[in-house]
Amino acid sequence: MPFFFVWMVPMTTLVLLDYASVIVFAVTGALVASRAQLDVVGFGFVACLTAVGGGTVRDVVLDRNPVFWLADPLNIAAALLAAVVIFFTAHWVESRLKAVIWLDAVALSVAVAAGVLAARSVDQPAAIQVIMGVMTGCLGGLMRDVVCNEVPLVLKQGELYVTAALAGAVGALAGLWLSPGSPWAAIALCAALTFGLRAGSILFGWRLPVYRARPPQT
Amino acid sequence: MPFFFVWMVPMTTLVLLDYASVIVFAVTGALVASRAQLDVVGFGFVACLTAVGGGTVRDVVLDRNPVFWLADPLNIAAALLAAVVIFFTAHWVESRLKAVIWLDAVALSVAVAAGVLAARSVDQPAAIQVIMGVMTGCLGGLMRDVVCNEVPLVLKQGELYVTAALAGAVGALAGLWLSPGSPWAAIALCAALTFGLRAGSILFGWRLPVYRARPPQT
Amino acid sequence: MPFFFVWMVPMTTLVLLDYASVIVFAVTGALVASRAQLDVVGFGFVACLTAVGGGTVRDVVLDRNPVFWLADPLNIAAALLAAVVIFFTAHWVESRLKAVIWLDAVALSVAVAAGVLAARSVDQPAAIQVIMGVMTGCLGGLMRDVVCNEVPLVLKQGELYVTAALAGAVGALAGLWLSPGSPWAAIALCAALTFGLRAGSILFGWRLPVYRARPPQT
Repeated sequence: MPFFFVWMVPMTTLVLLDYASVIVFAVTGALVASRAQLDVVGFGFVACLTAVGGGTVRDVVLDRNPVFWLADPLNIAAALLAAVVIFFTAHWVESRLKAVIWLDAVALSVAVAAGVLAARSVDQPAAIQVIMGVMTGCLGGLMRDVVCNEVPLVLKQGELYVTAALAGAVGALAGLWLSPGSPWAAIALCAALTFGLRAGSILFGWRLPVYRARPPQT
Repeated sequence: MPFFFVWMVPMTTLVLLDYASVIVFAVTGALVASRAQLDVVGFGFVACLTAVGGGTVRDVVLDRNPVFWLADPLNIAAALLAAVVIFFTAHWVESRLKAVIWLDAVALSVAVAAGVLAARSVDQPAAIQVIMGVMTGCLGGLMRDVVCNEVPLVLKQGELYVTAALAGAVGALAGLWLSPGSPWAAIALCAALTFGLRAGSILFGWRLPVYRARPPQT
Repeated sequence: MPFFFVWMVPMTTLVLLDYASVIVFAVTGALVASRAQLDVVGFGFVACLTAVGGGTVRDVVLDRNPVFWLADPLNIAAALLAAVVIFFTAHWVESRLKAVIWLDAVALSVAVAAGVLAARSVDQPAAIQVIMGVMTGCLGGLMRDVVCNEVPLVLKQGELYVTAALAGAVGALAGLWLSPGSPWAAIALCAALTFGLRAGSILFGWRLPVYRARPPQT
């Protein structure tokens, strides 16, 4: 490996975060596969793409070697297991679209923190940490939606998504600044901000002003 | 190059396999371009994307340097030649969609074996060899279909595609276990399984049970 | 960094070219975001994807470390600034689609040259320089259009796009051959060819013969 770690504790934390986001993203991928009526192997394929897509782009761009799921293929096993479980249980879910949206919000909250900490673990500056947080969070779901031909959640008009990821990534930096010795403040702050903004957007319609071709004349 | 090869023979075999899958995938890309009525340069672009897409992602994720077509740009030349030939001959083909489906099955059979052997050549464990086989096989065609706005073959409801790739990749492992000194048993077993399952799926409707929102009550 | 530069001057030029293509591509991304009525953070996301997508794939495939915008995060800042400016000014533009098409042609002209020079800076052969020019130019816009569900400009039937990029890349090689000491001849020739062919295609319908399923019988 072409780099060494600054702290060992966060590395373990990072592994746990990657697992958590892998599993929850895998569930969202499997649910989208159920909407496309694929077979169980198709569930596994979409689940893996969603689960490891964002983190893979992050690791390739950062030149972290090996990519996280090559270092630990149990990530893939976890995603596949999640896909199989969903294949047999998705019909218990009342609204699969709703489940996708909410679980995606959970996975996003965790993945953004994982991205920030991964960039920090290879000593990238703060701006890159924020960008990697947003990328890790958003790209897996984006691949899932593009491949399955759903309207990408990330670009759904008038919802906070990239904004939530961005706020969470900045929150993670603030958490690391407040409590430099431990990553947990960063993770908690990031998850609370990301999930809070997503939830507010889904439930109460929180949004930023969207672009209008013709703003109302005063 | 950050690694050395365990065996030299399979490396040559690997080069040949990459060529074979490059050319056949390029033909499918050019046929899809003909359905979109592109010009000859557009044929070349889609052919190259399809031909080297899966192997490029494989090499980037495995950190194999240089990527196979940088090491040997003749791969690109072969893909371009195939595109030009198809540009002038595609109207001889009675059903271009049928030709895409069958040639894609051939290319898939070869590319899966190439992916498994490439992962093995850099000493990855068996699970990663299987995943790289599936990725190398499936991603080029997936890029072709997403970019050209066709329904991705890889996710077509009720067909064996990822399943065929997965079975072939496992078959390749079995072949390497049965005959560790030569890659040809692995290649033959992989191609037979992948192509056999795809063909059975296309001709006879072989499939795994797909997900149904409401399974029949007994 | 695993390589050293052959000439120092072009490296600076390369940085400038990357900036120029980043900013103009970011503007096209923001204009496409305005067509999708996203909020300001969505503008930034699409702008960044478009602006750095092609160059990122180029650097990852060439194994140039770090990727250009990791080496200089101001690229991202420039793309975000462009997105914010467009968010507040896009309604001044009479036809945003027309603006996208023309600015995309400008960005393409610059990005192709940047790709050729980047491949040359790591001592790749001429064929790879041409391919990297085409890739750097075409992939950012392709990602923008796939993610935002627009018909990809790059594959629009009966327009010169990849052809323009290809001609420009070959022109850049010719420029470097004519005037090996300075990159400016290459950049000028590349931009003139790429932009000229795109403009001719948009204004006067210049095109290559497209594939026809049934060519007229004589």
